[in-house]
Amino acid sequence: MNAVTSVMEAEGRWVPAMPELAARARAAARVLAQSSSETRNAALRHAAAALRERQDEILAANALDLAASTAAAAFRDRLTLTPARVEAMAAGLDDIAQLPDPVGRVLAEWTRPNGLRISRVATPVGVIGMIYESRPNVGADAAGLCIKSGNAVILRGGSESLQSARAIHGAMVAGLRAAGLPEAAVQIAPDTDRRHVADMLGAAGQIDLIIPRGGKSLVERVQREARVPVLAHAEGLCHTYVHEAADPEMARALVVNAKMRRTGICGATETLLIDAAVAPALLPGIVADLAAKGCAFKADARARAILPDLPAASEADFGTEWLDAILSIAVVDGVDDALAHIARFGSAHTEAIVTEDAEVAARFLNGTDSAVVMWNASTQFCDGGEFGFGAEIGIATGRIHARGPVGLEQLTTFRYEVIGTGQLRP
Amino acid sequence: MNAVTSVMEAEGRWVPAMPELAARARAAARVLAQSSSETRNAALRHAAAALRERQDEILAANALDLAASTAAAAFRDRLTLTPARVEAMAAGLDDIAQLPDPVGRVLAEWTRPNGLRISRVATPVGVIGMIYESRPNVGADAAGLCIKSGNAVILRGGSESLQSARAIHGAMVAGLRAAGLPEAAVQIAPDTDRRHVADMLGAAGQIDLIIPRGGKSLVERVQREARVPVLAHAEGLCHTYVHEAADPEMARALVVNAKMRRTGICGATETLLIDAAVAPALLPGIVADLAAKGCAFKADARARAILPDLPAASEADFGTEWLDAILSIAVVDGVDDALAHIARFGSAHTEAIVTEDAEVAARFLNGTDSAVVMWNASTQFCDGGEFGFGAEIGIATGRIHARGPVGLEQLTTFRYEVIGTGQLRP
Repeated sequence: MNAVTSVMEAEGRWVPAMPELAARARAAARVLAQSSSETRNAALRHAAAALRERQDEILAANALDLAASTAAAAFRDRLTLTPARVEAMAAGLDDIAQLPDPVGRVLAEWTRPNGLRISRVATPVGVIGMIYESRPNVGADAAGLCIKSGNAVILRGGSESLQSARAIHGAMVAGLRAAGLPEAAVQIAPDTDRRHVADMLGAAGQIDLIIPRGGKSLVERVQREARVPVLAHAEGLCHTYVHEAADPEMARALVVNAKMRRTGICGATETLLIDAAVAPALLPGIVADLAAKGCAFKADARARAILPDLPAASEADFGTEWLDAILSIAVVDGVDDALAHIARFGSAHTEAIVTEDAEVAARFLNGTDSAVVMWNASTQFCDGGEFGFGAEIGIATGRIHARGPVGLEQLTTFRYEVIGTGQLRP
Repeated sequence: MNAVTSVMEAEGRWVPAMPELAARARAAARVLAQSSSETRNAALRHAAAALRERQDEILAANALDLAASTAAAAFRDRLTLTPARVEAMAAGLDDIAQLPDPVGRVLAEWTRPNGLRISRVATPVGVIGMIYESRPNVGADAAGLCIKSGNAVILRGGSESLQSARAIHGAMVAGLRAAGLPEAAVQIAPDTDRRHVADMLGAAGQIDLIIPRGGKSLVERVQREARVPVLAHAEGLCHTYVHEAADPEMARALVVNAKMRRTGICGATETLLIDAAVAPALLPGIVADLAAKGCAFKADARARAILPDLPAASEADFGTEWLDAILSIAVVDGVDDALAHIARFGSAHTEAIVTEDAEVAARFLNGTDSAVVMWNASTQFCDGGEFGFGAEIGIATGRIHARGPVGLEQLTTFRYEVIGTGQLRP
């Protein structure tokens, strides 16, 4: 990396760093793919130790980032590291070290009539590009998950967090070195030039998978421009649908949890759909519960016919991911109408139905394009930890390779192993 | 489609057809995803019947294509339909109808400590774009696999086969109609304008997956330009490595089969790697067997030291997919040297080792980036039928979603279904 930065700085012109970083990453990935589970776990534990040992250095780097930042308070909070946050990063790596090895799992095996034994075996993807924004801890989490799953990773953090990202990267490299693994298994873009992002997005064949973490505009840019496969979600416009056969108390509790437990996460419900048959009876109570917790509303005409004080929703409101204490409300006529609303406005993230009718539930579960569908559960459960994955690198709403929470298993691909005794193809 | 073509023809200017085709495909895909296995199988059998009933019409359309074609003999052969080839297409659809339904398979299921039951269920991908060259039967095969797996497909065949492709498409639509499924489940680009290909490649979010079938230049263009995930292989530069602990007779038979059974398929071996320790003893016999079958050679200096009459290989020869009765030969020093050669020149398709040493075999199987690795078997076995998939739509060498032969299972993705009893996230 020093060689790369010094070339760039010395000559004062744009020298693409990605081809070199990607070539080193590929070489490192080959070593990682053949390393033992124990070695990769050792690297994770050494990196955790290095984070703890270097806490002062990391906080000092973070102070430089904060001093240079002119961002608003919420952004500054995400950027800020504290002793507790450094410890949380280290503990996260220790936790990842304890998870089962996702590499080498036999996903399927069978024997052909000619005696060939065929198996599908989980392997690392190869080289992963991680593009993220302000939170410096994303770099440590992503690097940890990639090392565990035998992938090399190239990190490109936000420009505001460069010093913090470099300090964290140093600890990850120390961990790799202590375990005898190649340092290029975790690399970081040498500076914050946006052209590195463009180069990553165009690096087909060099980077195998790009995972963007950040706001909608970042993710949409990546999805629009990438010529490399992308795992991501641009938004989580999640729906909870209260069917006419819903248990009223369950519906009330689920909607409040799905909307208000944490309003800023992608699995938070943004729109309540409620059947016309039960809306007069249930909507007032649900709205009262939500209002008591500080929620505001955007309601369609049919909901306002029941509760005239609710503010009117525009068409655009139903396509808005609020990420805030605001709920869009529409009254619908049964499950097909609810599914049509979701098909029109949804983001293929997470949708839930509340009903006691198993047949209707099955129709709903099978009727969306969404990565995660739920029956009588809170959409806030869409989370790698809650799914039992131990850790997640993001949530994907695309249709290829992985969907929903992306954990260690989803950072693997597979190869076919064919074992014969000299079979010739006729 | 007639509406689309008439607008284009009437106005004499470029009107993109893809957005409209893709929107119809998405609507059709939603219906298909919820259709029963029986309905989709009925569509396949009706389409097979329609192909048989319309044989004369299809052959007449094909005669128009042939009359307009100025292509060379090999190309004309691929373009030519005969009664037997029409029957083979129909029989292929009947066969696909009898395969197990890939949709709805429960890929995994578990229960969380809070009682949430989570399952990963196979679902159709959605809308697939199939870009292929001369062989008109690819349209029927691809449409059949897509209908079976609940996907809508947009076909874009070669310009030389347009009339044939339209006639075949008509039979597929007749099958869908007879089964009560939407006709837009199988659509065809309205004309042979190359801009339709560009529009397909750029249709992120509208087309979910593109599968190109054809020559290297077509596939490489698709891989380079697509902003939609692609399943493909640009080439199959497959290696067979004869390790020093190989059974000599098995090695001889496997190399001959891997190279010469059919030289034009992507799983044919293009390069023989042979250990220096056994090359003097084994290479003369292998070369004699191959030469007797008409094979020519390109050999490195170490192989020519053993057999001076072999023509010399250039560096570029080892990177050439011959698809012909030509074999590149290199002498190597053990498994790591063989793996280094494959890493440098291979195309991540299929590689085989011949050895009686299980430890070395394991090292080889784990040491490539290739989609398929074999031990004591012919690389010609890399084929969906030979793998037991029943049918294949192509072979993929990328790292994401699917690798190796792409059959019905690989045309599915999944969703998570989360079933609760009112659980709230703490």
